[in-house]
Amino acid sequence: MEATESRSRVVLVVEYEGTRYCGFQYQAGVATVQDELEQAILKLTGECVRVIGASRTDSGVHARGQVVSFRTRAAYAPGVFVRGLNHYLPDDIAVREAYRVGAGFKVRGEAVSREYQYQILNAPVRSPLTRSHAHHVPQPLDAEAMDQAARDLCGRHDFASFVSFEMKRSTVRTVSHASVTREGEYVVFRMVANSFLPHQVRNIVGVLVQIGLGKLGKGHVRRLLDARKPGLAGPTAPPHGLSLMRVNYACPLGAM
Amino acid sequence: MEATESRSRVVLVVEYEGTRYCGFQYQAGVATVQDELEQAILKLTGECVRVIGASRTDSGVHARGQVVSFRTRAAYAPGVFVRGLNHYLPDDIAVREAYRVGAGFKVRGEAVSREYQYQILNAPVRSPLTRSHAHHVPQPLDAEAMDQAARDLCGRHDFASFVSFEMKRSTVRTVSHASVTREGEYVVFRMVANSFLPHQVRNIVGVLVQIGLGKLGKGHVRRLLDARKPGLAGPTAPPHGLSLMRVNYACPLGAM
Repeated sequence: MEATESRSRVVLVVEYEGTRYCGFQYQAGVATVQDELEQAILKLTGECVRVIGASRTDSGVHARGQVVSFRTRAAYAPGVFVRGLNHYLPDDIAVREAYRVGAGFKVRGEAVSREYQYQILNAPVRSPLTRSHAHHVPQPLDAEAMDQAARDLCGRHDFASFVSFEMKRSTVRTVSHASVTREGEYVVFRMVANSFLPHQVRNIVGVLVQIGLGKLGKGHVRRLLDARKPGLAGPTAPPHGLSLMRVNYACPLGAM
Repeated sequence: MEATESRSRVVLVVEYEGTRYCGFQYQAGVATVQDELEQAILKLTGECVRVIGASRTDSGVHARGQVVSFRTRAAYAPGVFVRGLNHYLPDDIAVREAYRVGAGFKVRGEAVSREYQYQILNAPVRSPLTRSHAHHVPQPLDAEAMDQAARDLCGRHDFASFVSFEMKRSTVRTVSHASVTREGEYVVFRMVANSFLPHQVRNIVGVLVQIGLGKLGKGHVRRLLDARKPGLAGPTAPPHGLSLMRVNYACPLGAM
């Protein structure tokens, strides 16, 4: 067991454009961010490792600050992991930061919260320059009504209505921030929670857009929370507007 | 000649991501923005038209507000040109606005000024999310020194040193604005001039980056202006950081 014991854990903060990938998590035969990271680590260290991500982003979803971890025997300084992996990674994935952490560190379990952002281009005409990062809604949105509805998400709630299917595990989550702001031609939804359910943000955005268009009332988010019935929320907003912005831990990653 | 006389002139404000195109202007056998616009107009109106752009953007250069014009017999309202052309255009080109203008309107000759922007990502690590729109310079740039040097561009000057080869036409241009600002991890160069020379902005950025790195002094822009020798400036910065933001006319396009 000596070989195992000489391994230490490395954490990476990773940015990627999800357009080309079938999500973060490894699936045989298709391009995934996890697979690209594992391939790059293999090229740098010669080791076959298993990379664990703090958040499983869906197909087409981007990340500004995904956090991943793996165990390695390589004794490189953190900066070598940044430069070395960026050399091998494709241009739509980059390692922004690297840290050595304690061997027992759990990148998922120890995350205190995750921050997601969903961008909507709310203008009559589609935008070639932001088409991969913003969902286009041409009809005018009432961002203030959306923001008021978003506030009902804050706190500890059962989000069962916001997943598409019955889940075995608990659907209770604690939301510490949820807001909608208008920024020029863009309407931006931001949400911070202890953790997220599959399609949760995109199902919430689907409801908020209906509220912004005046098709649903501001009280609808609250009604959906009360109903606790899978499949009730939606329609699911498309993935390309969504980005995982940050994963937060009890103390900075550099001090773990 | 009746058919000709029944044609009127339409002006479009066009946004595009230049990544996939060998520039704006038509060249046989390669993808160009002009060709895509002419194909879309053919599909919408059934007419083979010649589209003229206010600025000939290079291969890989983007536009937020390119202005183009063409003559047509189609009697559609401007909004129909916007929606109809966007239906036929690929997703990396979109018509933002359309106007009917006088038959004699010259989209190039009557342009009072053009505004360009060049984005530099000035951070240690490359960014997947902005890789198509910002040139990555990892070493720290002194944006203030760059801004001071940029101010020397303002006014009426002979920009011969900032083109790559001897030009037959005059290389004198009038610059009404030139600035460098730091915006978080980005350093942004903005320039407004009556018109621009081939590769002029990218050659200027090449010099400004050298100044920002401390490899050239702040007075170097002024020395290059004085020298008036083609090929002296550079290196030519890569195209993907550059965007044509706006073309200005004596009065708003809607009032022409």
